Amino acid sequence: MIITLKKNAPQNEIEHLHQALEDRGVEIHAIEGTDFNVWGLVGDTAELDERDILANECVANVQRVSAPYKLANRMFHPDDTVVDVAGVKIGGKEPIVVMGGPCSIEGKDQAVRIAKEVKAAGGRIFRGGAYKPRTSPYSFQGLGYEGILDMVEARKETGLPIVSELMSADKIDEFVENVDLVQIGARNMQNFDLLKAVGHINKPILLKRGMSATIEDWIMSAEYIMSSGNPNVILCERGIRTFEKYTRNTMDLAVIPIIKEKTHLPIVIDPSHATGDWKYVEADALAAIAAGADGLIIEVHDHPDQAWSDGAQSLKPEKFARLIYKARRVAAAVDRDL
Amino acid sequence: MIITLKKNAPQNEIEHLHQALEDRGVEIHAIEGTDFNVWGLVGDTAELDERDILANECVANVQRVSAPYKLANRMFHPDDTVVDVAGVKIGGKEPIVVMGGPCSIEGKDQAVRIAKEVKAAGGRIFRGGAYKPRTSPYSFQGLGYEGILDMVEARKETGLPIVSELMSADKIDEFVENVDLVQIGARNMQNFDLLKAVGHINKPILLKRGMSATIEDWIMSAEYIMSSGNPNVILCERGIRTFEKYTRNTMDLAVIPIIKEKTHLPIVIDPSHATGDWKYVEADALAAIAAGADGLIIEVHDHPDQAWSDGAQSLKPEKFARLIYKARRVAAAVDRDL
Amino acid sequence: MIITLKKNAPQNEIEHLHQALEDRGVEIHAIEGTDFNVWGLVGDTAELDERDILANECVANVQRVSAPYKLANRMFHPDDTVVDVAGVKIGGKEPIVVMGGPCSIEGKDQAVRIAKEVKAAGGRIFRGGAYKPRTSPYSFQGLGYEGILDMVEARKETGLPIVSELMSADKIDEFVENVDLVQIGARNMQNFDLLKAVGHINKPILLKRGMSATIEDWIMSAEYIMSSGNPNVILCERGIRTFEKYTRNTMDLAVIPIIKEKTHLPIVIDPSHATGDWKYVEADALAAIAAGADGLIIEVHDHPDQAWSDGAQSLKPEKFARLIYKARRVAAAVDRDL
Amino acid sequence: MIITLKKNAPQNEIEHLHQALEDRGVEIHAIEGTDFNVWGLVGDTAELDERDILANECVANVQRVSAPYKLANRMFHPDDTVVDVAGVKIGGKEPIVVMGGPCSIEGKDQAVRIAKEVKAAGGRIFRGGAYKPRTSPYSFQGLGYEGILDMVEARKETGLPIVSELMSADKIDEFVENVDLVQIGARNMQNFDLLKAVGHINKPILLKRGMSATIEDWIMSAEYIMSSGNPNVILCERGIRTFEKYTRNTMDLAVIPIIKEKTHLPIVIDPSHATGDWKYVEADALAAIAAGADGLIIEVHDHPDQAWSDGAQSLKPEKFARLIYKARRVAAAVDRDL
Repeated sequence: MIITLKKNAPQNEIEHLHQALEDRGVEIHAIEGTDFNVWGLVGDTAELDERDILANECVANVQRVSAPYKLANRMFHPDDTVVDVAGVKIGGKEPIVVMGGPCSIEGKDQAVRIAKEVKAAGGRIFRGGAYKPRTSPYSFQGLGYEGILDMVEARKETGLPIVSELMSADKIDEFVENVDLVQIGARNMQNFDLLKAVGHINKPILLKRGMSATIEDWIMSAEYIMSSGNPNVILCERGIRTFEKYTRNTMDLAVIPIIKEKTHLPIVIDPSHATGDWKYVEADALAAIAAGADGLIIEVHDHPDQAWSDGAQSLKPEKFARLIYKARRVAAAVDRDL
Repeated sequence: MIITLKKNAPQNEIEHLHQALEDRGVEIHAIEGTDFNVWGLVGDTAELDERDILANECVANVQRVSAPYKLANRMFHPDDTVVDVAGVKIGGKEPIVVMGGPCSIEGKDQAVRIAKEVKAAGGRIFRGGAYKPRTSPYSFQGLGYEGILDMVEARKETGLPIVSELMSADKIDEFVENVDLVQIGARNMQNFDLLKAVGHINKPILLKRGMSATIEDWIMSAEYIMSSGNPNVILCERGIRTFEKYTRNTMDLAVIPIIKEKTHLPIVIDPSHATGDWKYVEADALAAIAAGADGLIIEVHDHPDQAWSDGAQSLKPEKFARLIYKARRVAAAVDRDL
Repeated sequence: MIITLKKNAPQNEIEHLHQALEDRGVEIHAIEGTDFNVWGLVGDTAELDERDILANECVANVQRVSAPYKLANRMFHPDDTVVDVAGVKIGGKEPIVVMGGPCSIEGKDQAVRIAKEVKAAGGRIFRGGAYKPRTSPYSFQGLGYEGILDMVEARKETGLPIVSELMSADKIDEFVENVDLVQIGARNMQNFDLLKAVGHINKPILLKRGMSATIEDWIMSAEYIMSSGNPNVILCERGIRTFEKYTRNTMDLAVIPIIKEKTHLPIVIDPSHATGDWKYVEADALAAIAAGADGLIIEVHDHPDQAWSDGAQSLKPEKFARLIYKARRVAAAVDRDL
Repeated sequence: MIITLKKNAPQNEIEHLHQALEDRGVEIHAIEGTDFNVWGLVGDTAELDERDILANECVANVQRVSAPYKLANRMFHPDDTVVDVAGVKIGGKEPIVVMGGPCSIEGKDQAVRIAKEVKAAGGRIFRGGAYKPRTSPYSFQGLGYEGILDMVEARKETGLPIVSELMSADKIDEFVENVDLVQIGARNMQNFDLLKAVGHINKPILLKRGMSATIEDWIMSAEYIMSSGNPNVILCERGIRTFEKYTRNTMDLAVIPIIKEKTHLPIVIDPSHATGDWKYVEADALAAIAAGADGLIIEVHDHPDQAWSDGAQSLKPEKFARLIYKARRVAAAVDRDL
């Protein structure tokens, strides 16, 4: 950590800060500069908060040298983490995994019917929303537990593991019992109590990036889960919020090489939410494969115009199958299986 | 609601959509245009979801004419809502309310000591964090229930009502029992389960704007609380995330006239989080008063350099007192008391 | 165009607006709604400005149904435009074109040397900066005309057409005489006088997207060039500015299917500027190919650590060659040549 | 400047960089850290480019300690700059200056008529657009030179100095001859050739912030003008582009204390463009005054509904007069004249 000090700061303030930092166990190396003085801090600075140090009036600026994450940091864990979702492996050199299914579960028949389509097309995990985070209280809020049970039926019929979003800690037991991969949605990426709660279970977690989360914020949320005891975190990019209006969000594909460089965790892309428009899903899905994604999660519905939510971004099964066909060719071109 | 239809869409798709909309109880007025056809929908469209309609391939675009919120909408509730926080009234023509206190409660002495300073300076509500949403799992996470009890002590000693952030529904009873104004933080603004939960209590809610929430998203989150039964919502702007790096967030003061135009709810500004730097807090606080804010919430600490969190944006008590002195003058200039 | 009118607006204001619109030659279809009334305007509305209509106090909102661009609009020009850059064709079903070269031209030797490397690797156009838009007046500003002449030498030696950025209309003759593809940079995307000026020349234009330009803004800038008489516009995405800090910009790849849907113009991607870091360039370049890009423009330098600008995002020639090798495989997987 | 070096980098690369930096005349202080090594550079680093250093593979990160601007930097010029616009002084402790006028000049009568209203209301500079940067080539582009002459007439009749936007260097003589304050618009904030050109004239410059410009970018653009020889730069905030849709832009008022801290230049606020809606202009204008702005620039039109551009954000003269009346009261409350 680098602390920039004002030249004209009172000596006693500077000494006070110097002492306080030494008390935290770090070594201080001082450099006298032209306009500012600089301290380089050596030692474990992960528990120092930049903003606490900034509170000293003698300080002009504080900059971190080492990343604030440890468990997710590839520097301390060079090997790829491979996450096992009820037998389906994600990450490292494993084949790319495509997850598909409807935005909302609408009943057992719909769940089973679409799960079969997903499987037939080559999808390996069935996704579906039972508890739905909707912007409007007047929109359909999901079938809840009934929807989870419908997904369990779909798994029975197809053998596909299931992933669904957990919105509240009081439903954790239900998810541990029934769901194979527990999704934390974008809107809850910094619901820290929920992160800690899923850090205590032994199911893998799909952690979506928040709409305004920096990559560092996102990795720190993974670190919450990991430091609570659960190492099985899969990161999922679903687009960030920008000024652009032609798409619902802006998909940030540079996260793929960055997540692989900074962390050892698998990275999955959700082109359905990133674009918000089925017409653009295929192009962005292929792009994600070419950039090195470990998986895709895609909304599929056999009657998008009758979907109870987000039909606009759902692919029909035949389009989903065609996407997987094309994705396989692109995967092969970058030496990955799918 | 306005639906734009593609000219070359198959007739049966169009008829199918027409029927589906009529089944939802809206009247359809068709206009034949040059490049597109247009349907104007008349009736209650709040429960129609734009994105469901967009899922029809014959549809090029969907635009809402009426706002998607009802209970918060000034159109249906022209009078200002005044929220009563244990006797302190906020909103309408009531005097502007300044809330102050530390980012984190650090113990009973600190709480009582700072609450006295806040009161002496003219603050009318004591704020403090007991449960802290921190980006890093390695940062101080708050004293929890102990911190709430420390705030209760501070209230006993000063008579100031207290506001603190609720991060998880399982602590609601604790908050209902002890806290006068329940804060929902920016990171939980779309934690819909939590919004519904606080919609069922009879304490007023301070709803912070999410870092990437549009004003409409934010009002919809208020609508969640209100439609669950709790009409006492105060909106609080705390800055949005932009590309700018010299401040922690960008304070959006246009929200003040907009919230007053679109809704009947009180609007409070948090210049501490918006700027992230105590040096800029006073300027932005005075700006908020001039623009018509109903209140301010400001971080105050008597030893910012020793604060357990966010010292960088905390004002010392004497600076807080000076801010209130100046804010009074600005309030008078815009015909408000403080 | 759809105009939403306030219910309680004075009748004379409404009549005044009605007359003014009819005078502009559009037909008005009125719909009486619950909370608002609505007018649908039929006819040529491209020359009506939403904001002029909004200036009427009786108007609550104005929404465009048809796109504001005509010449770039695929609706009125269904066939792909293929742009010919001194014999190299870009767009449509033509092979994907890779452009490469240094951020800054540093002299004849450097230009020729790198152009040869670009050609050897499979690049088909040589890029280089002679006039450099630098954030700091103290940074190297480019060799100017000398740099252009160095590029001309590089073309002589390699046969590769050359592309370079034009920053000011007073250099147009120099560019018309020497350069094969005239680049308008992101910072000048809304320098409308410059757009009009290059609309009058008969060289193709590479129009970069502004850092905060919506896709619609960007197409409108192409429309400026086209409506001034130059139909040969290639659009180039180079990343937009967001809150993310790990990359210089955020590359928005959804533009590829969108530009192809909304316009008939070729679309080229610049992963060097989009990421700002050579380590991420390959992944994003392959992604762009998979998503359907018509070309790539990539910074190449044989000694990035000695480059006079932007070495951080430049690929060494061997990495550039490897990128093209991989890009060819991905191109084949999506049925394109490269 | 702080350079973070990878621990495992080859020794010869590190020595090469060390030598290269010493050759640039800076002193290097090395600190051996736990995960990285760090160099602190002492000396004049303004001409070093972070990104050139980043191009060395041994470098993990580069961070600037001192600001990259010198002439605009308050550290080296502690006194406020007061800019004289044909006798009207702006900045320092001078009275706040309100500039007003139409978005577009529409003819001599309109210009003179509105200038008189602006003066009667208390405005001290007359603004008007003769050359208009419009997103669409089909929108009114301004009267050009004729509009400038109309403004000259308005100055003759009222005595108010005039400000207008210069879009292209080839019109500089026209502006030097006729205009008192030369505006560089948001879209040209990084049109560096234009910045250098106005750096060579002896008229004051009103430099608007670009829609996606950080404060540092903006100050660097001022530095371009100043380093070319023109010290009379007034900075003007006009809102930045964010995801918010209820306003045209987001006004960033924290710039006021920041610009005053980092630079010695005057800062003026444009609430008309920042909000894009006349209904919100007054609130934001008062906020700007309370936050310490040195001036306001506001769009005024006597018939907004007939304005040739941007009527939606124009105030009628009586509203403008009321705004000035209120602004005076707020100014007095913060001990400024207006």
